[in-house]
Amino acid sequence: MTTDTPPPIGPVVLIGAGLVGASVGCALTRAGEQVHVTDLVLSHARVAVSKGAGTLMHPPPERVRLVVVAVPPRALVEVIESALVRYPNATVTDVGSVKAVVVERLAATPGRDRYVGSHPMAGSHHAGPLTAQADLFEDRPWVLAPHAESAAASVTIVRAMIERCGARVVQLSPSDHDSAVARVSHLPHLVSALVAGSLPGTAPEYLRLAGQGLRDVTRIAGSDPRLWEQIIELNAASLRPELLALQGRLTSLIDGLDDTANLLAHLETGLAGTLQIPGKHGRTPAEYAEVVIEIPDAPGALSRLFADIDAAGINVEDISIEHDAVREVGYLSLSVTAEYHLELLAAMEASEWDVRA
Amino acid sequence: MTTDTPPPIGPVVLIGAGLVGASVGCALTRAGEQVHVTDLVLSHARVAVSKGAGTLMHPPPERVRLVVVAVPPRALVEVIESALVRYPNATVTDVGSVKAVVVERLAATPGRDRYVGSHPMAGSHHAGPLTAQADLFEDRPWVLAPHAESAAASVTIVRAMIERCGARVVQLSPSDHDSAVARVSHLPHLVSALVAGSLPGTAPEYLRLAGQGLRDVTRIAGSDPRLWEQIIELNAASLRPELLALQGRLTSLIDGLDDTANLLAHLETGLAGTLQIPGKHGRTPAEYAEVVIEIPDAPGALSRLFADIDAAGINVEDISIEHDAVREVGYLSLSVTAEYHLELLAAMEASEWDVRA
Repeated sequence: MTTDTPPPIGPVVLIGAGLVGASVGCALTRAGEQVHVTDLVLSHARVAVSKGAGTLMHPPPERVRLVVVAVPPRALVEVIESALVRYPNATVTDVGSVKAVVVERLAATPGRDRYVGSHPMAGSHHAGPLTAQADLFEDRPWVLAPHAESAAASVTIVRAMIERCGARVVQLSPSDHDSAVARVSHLPHLVSALVAGSLPGTAPEYLRLAGQGLRDVTRIAGSDPRLWEQIIELNAASLRPELLALQGRLTSLIDGLDDTANLLAHLETGLAGTLQIPGKHGRTPAEYAEVVIEIPDAPGALSRLFADIDAAGINVEDISIEHDAVREVGYLSLSVTAEYHLELLAAMEASEWDVRA
Repeated sequence: MTTDTPPPIGPVVLIGAGLVGASVGCALTRAGEQVHVTDLVLSHARVAVSKGAGTLMHPPPERVRLVVVAVPPRALVEVIESALVRYPNATVTDVGSVKAVVVERLAATPGRDRYVGSHPMAGSHHAGPLTAQADLFEDRPWVLAPHAESAAASVTIVRAMIERCGARVVQLSPSDHDSAVARVSHLPHLVSALVAGSLPGTAPEYLRLAGQGLRDVTRIAGSDPRLWEQIIELNAASLRPELLALQGRLTSLIDGLDDTANLLAHLETGLAGTLQIPGKHGRTPAEYAEVVIEIPDAPGALSRLFADIDAAGINVEDISIEHDAVREVGYLSLSVTAEYHLELLAAMEASEWDVRA
């Protein structure tokens, strides 16, 4: 006997209709689940519902099988606790950026065996339910982080939810999750803020000399401090060793600033580190050849450029644009696999584009 | 009496035919100057000449009026000194990334009044004369850094060279130049390397959680350690206070990691810092609205997309692409001025593009 449709995991109650919460609602609704949307701000819930995240109607609490908590980090524990009480037969999960401290604070909470944390590695520069997308999580990693007392049945239902959202389950313990995001997300965020923190008060003629490197390093420091302050504070235990290790490397760098071998060792460790980061679709950046084109800052230029590339039958793997801070032009960097490199150069020159490199 | 063509500043001798040196040769040759190209590696000089950087023929040394030294940082002082001897009537300049230490080491060099340092804020991800471009410097800032003993006539000739390359003169003292690049370039570079330095040895399942933030912060750590080690070492005097200030902020952050107000203050200072960086053409990033489109990773997709944008008469100010590490799709972020925001959304939806936000 086979079934084409897996059994429902709902009724689902969604608490918090921001971008991530509303997108979970949309994904589960699209997968055929009953989703009931709530938010402290009713208009957020309404917008989420209008985007397909579910319904505003509520089922009897004892019928609810899954509660998804998608609230700001600092509110997580309180909302999870009240959900465990209000929905006595439900598994409760959350989509927060920090896991271990939540488990720790639930250590004496009745029903905590029905709690299984999770964390989708997806999002965008945007916030709020208006930008919700049913496919926000498709093929993205989504951490499933059961704690020591999580019931097997609850782990199963949260895993099913992740799969129904189209994401890829990465199972980690709460503390392993927190160590991972401390290193690959929270540490870079704080360091970006610390570097950007050197800029207030800088003379304008110094800032005129800023290039793309400074812009890249400080980009994430432009994020909302009030969200990040909560994330950092709740993950302080995992972040502290990362920050101390960084402090150790910084001290070694400063102490050996006049020592060529020491400097070179730090720079080479950094280079080795960049090669650890998975590239696009798992390839390493070195497999691509890059061609830089000067593009006039005018309507139609990019359209003509890509039409020329298309006409030449070339598949572009990556693009990035660098603006000149003064001239009304941009430089478009096109990355292609090695086989297309000469073809792309020839096609660009044939179409009289200004090839810079 | 007027003259349309300014008087020649050459004959010019170019020492070092890498990307920057060869591009200076191309720019000055295009401006009508006689440029004589030399490089320790004769094939580099030949390639530069083939790209239009000048000639391999040498004028009598006493006739040379300007020498441009474009060699790796560590070789600068020695090459400048020998140029001052070999070309007794020439002004000598260089295009190196560090200025004060060079002046200091020339303190007892006869003819040092004929030396005036400079530093074009241009370059590319590429190296070598093959990628030389006569317009590499057009409208870019180019620091003119006379020292206390520089002769007025030599300052005039180096200024004329910068102008003839199409760049914009930013006059700074050697030590002000070094302080500026320490803050806006060398500090971010080192910090990028220190963050990337946390990655070797990281478990692959941790690295699977890496997003765009880590990639941005660590991008410049992927540069050539052997070039950067020279730059950093020669600018150690200006970098040390920047590194110590960063160390102070890092220590304050670590010591107050559990203190909400302290954390928030660091994050807000970082945010304020990002707003100091001049945006594209001097605008601040906040003036743009962003629309994110999912694009299939297939030939023709970008071409169709930009054709649709073009047909709608929309001028795109900035683009960036983010690849999904797993799925064969990319997300293209398009920035437009506020007036085009709704039009762009409407145009994308009308053409059935998958608008993510």
